[in-house]
Amino acid sequence: MSNLTRIGVALDSDLLDKFDQHIAKRGYTNRSEAFRDLIRDELVEQTWERPTSKVVGTVTLVYDHHVRMLNEKLTEIQHDAFHTVLSTLHVHLDHDNCLEVLVMRGTAEAVRRVADALISTKGVKHGRLTITTTGTGL
Amino acid sequence: MSNLTRIGVALDSDLLDKFDQHIAKRGYTNRSEAFRDLIRDELVEQTWERPTSKVVGTVTLVYDHHVRMLNEKLTEIQHDAFHTVLSTLHVHLDHDNCLEVLVMRGTAEAVRRVADALISTKGVKHGRLTITTTGTGL
Amino acid sequence: MSNLTRIGVALDSDLLDKFDQHIAKRGYTNRSEAFRDLIRDELVEQTWERPTSKVVGTVTLVYDHHVRMLNEKLTEIQHDAFHTVLSTLHVHLDHDNCLEVLVMRGTAEAVRRVADALISTKGVKHGRLTITTTGTGL
Amino acid sequence: MSNLTRIGVALDSDLLDKFDQHIAKRGYTNRSEAFRDLIRDELVEQTWERPTSKVVGTVTLVYDHHVRMLNEKLTEIQHDAFHTVLSTLHVHLDHDNCLEVLVMRGTAEAVRRVADALISTKGVKHGRLTITTTGTGL
Repeated sequence: MSNLTRIGVALDSDLLDKFDQHIAKRGYTNRSEAFRDLIRDELVEQTWERPTSKVVGTVTLVYDHHVRMLNEKLTEIQHDAFHTVLSTLHVHLDHDNCLEVLVMRGTAEAVRRVADALISTKGVKHGRLTITTTGTGL
Repeated sequence: MSNLTRIGVALDSDLLDKFDQHIAKRGYTNRSEAFRDLIRDELVEQTWERPTSKVVGTVTLVYDHHVRMLNEKLTEIQHDAFHTVLSTLHVHLDHDNCLEVLVMRGTAEAVRRVADALISTKGVKHGRLTITTTGTGL
Repeated sequence: MSNLTRIGVALDSDLLDKFDQHIAKRGYTNRSEAFRDLIRDELVEQTWERPTSKVVGTVTLVYDHHVRMLNEKLTEIQHDAFHTVLSTLHVHLDHDNCLEVLVMRGTAEAVRRVADALISTKGVKHGRLTITTTGTGL
Repeated sequence: MSNLTRIGVALDSDLLDKFDQHIAKRGYTNRSEAFRDLIRDELVEQTWERPTSKVVGTVTLVYDHHVRMLNEKLTEIQHDAFHTVLSTLHVHLDHDNCLEVLVMRGTAEAVRRVADALISTKGVKHGRLTITTTGTGL
């Protein structure tokens, strides 16, 4: 934790009103905390633009485990990348549908490649990569 | 699984080129599969617009577990919503930083409310809600 | 939490010495806490003797995901029991070996049946059921 | 996978009957598979006797998250051992009770030390270490 600096930000009052309403709905009790979150979010996004940055990301997949060989293919992709995939949480949504969340850590390039391979696999109903951070320096 | 229908889509050839390059990079070997994914993604987004839709979502949080009482606050929020939070995967990134992924299921409104409460908690360095689907009807 | 009652326990001094050494090694700073843990452990075991008791258990499996159809079989068993299996954590140990931990909740009978089916599946290198509790009444 | 060797085992017929009944109840369709599992289980146990063996283990904990500072203490122990703790799955059993399963990898000595520290923490209602294997050589 570093020292707190107070800065001024000039804002159109209309824009500020909308922002205040937005963050109130989001549960913020403090405007500065909301600004800090926006800045950190930008910095996280930026990190992901350099292919060699060390990043952390999660991939969320929903699929029907009855699709022939789908399970095998997804497991194969994950094991080929086992240095990148830290762990996977599997929730059985119903008799057919699975949700899987993978936590990955590695270069932005490596994490994206694994995510793309999983999400584009035929039979995956919905897949999304969520980019985040190792937490260091934020 | 339903029957396959073949439809025609009229596309500017420039746009098609870009799309083909994009999906090749993403790992698709089949243009129709890429289109199906785009459509399903739209439908998932749409579901989330109705507050009472039954949805599944994941929340990814990165935080420093040394921040006073942060852990307690995040656990409290999750337990108050224990009907919505199915399970949480915790990965210890380093001596200070934690990554947590929560899998939630409930109405779009309830899932968003829990996500907002967690992400806006002071001390959370980065948080994102990833919206997905129960898989039913897709 | 209920009131604390102090009771006397008569013990052979040799046995007490061994017990004290044992719990010191286990990290207990307090002999009463160690006794309480022994009692709770007994009560948990007892609960599992009645087939209809509501219990919580975890199953730990290690297997080689290259074994033909093994993944499919394990997923099938879990989905057939999706009301009992709350969620599954998958860790990729190396290029070949997977560790899976399932959290289950249900009657002692149902949880045991799923655990037995998983552990006895050909190709599973090591499997164990760990019995625990819903926490209620302990 | 290595070649299959067929060996003879001399057994009292009473003992064999009991064993056959036991493994039938456990879901085995094949007596040899049941024997292989017994042998592997023995080998896993043996590995854990050498403090420096590389092992994998899971710890299952049930606790009331309302107990003052319990959450913080358990997180602290896990982070101090973050090289050993691969990941943790948290399930919210009800408004009060949490189940946590940790997957650990390291020397038998290190894994046991972390397990003991967690299980002996005051406020943990039930805790168990489940020993297993990295899968290599089995």
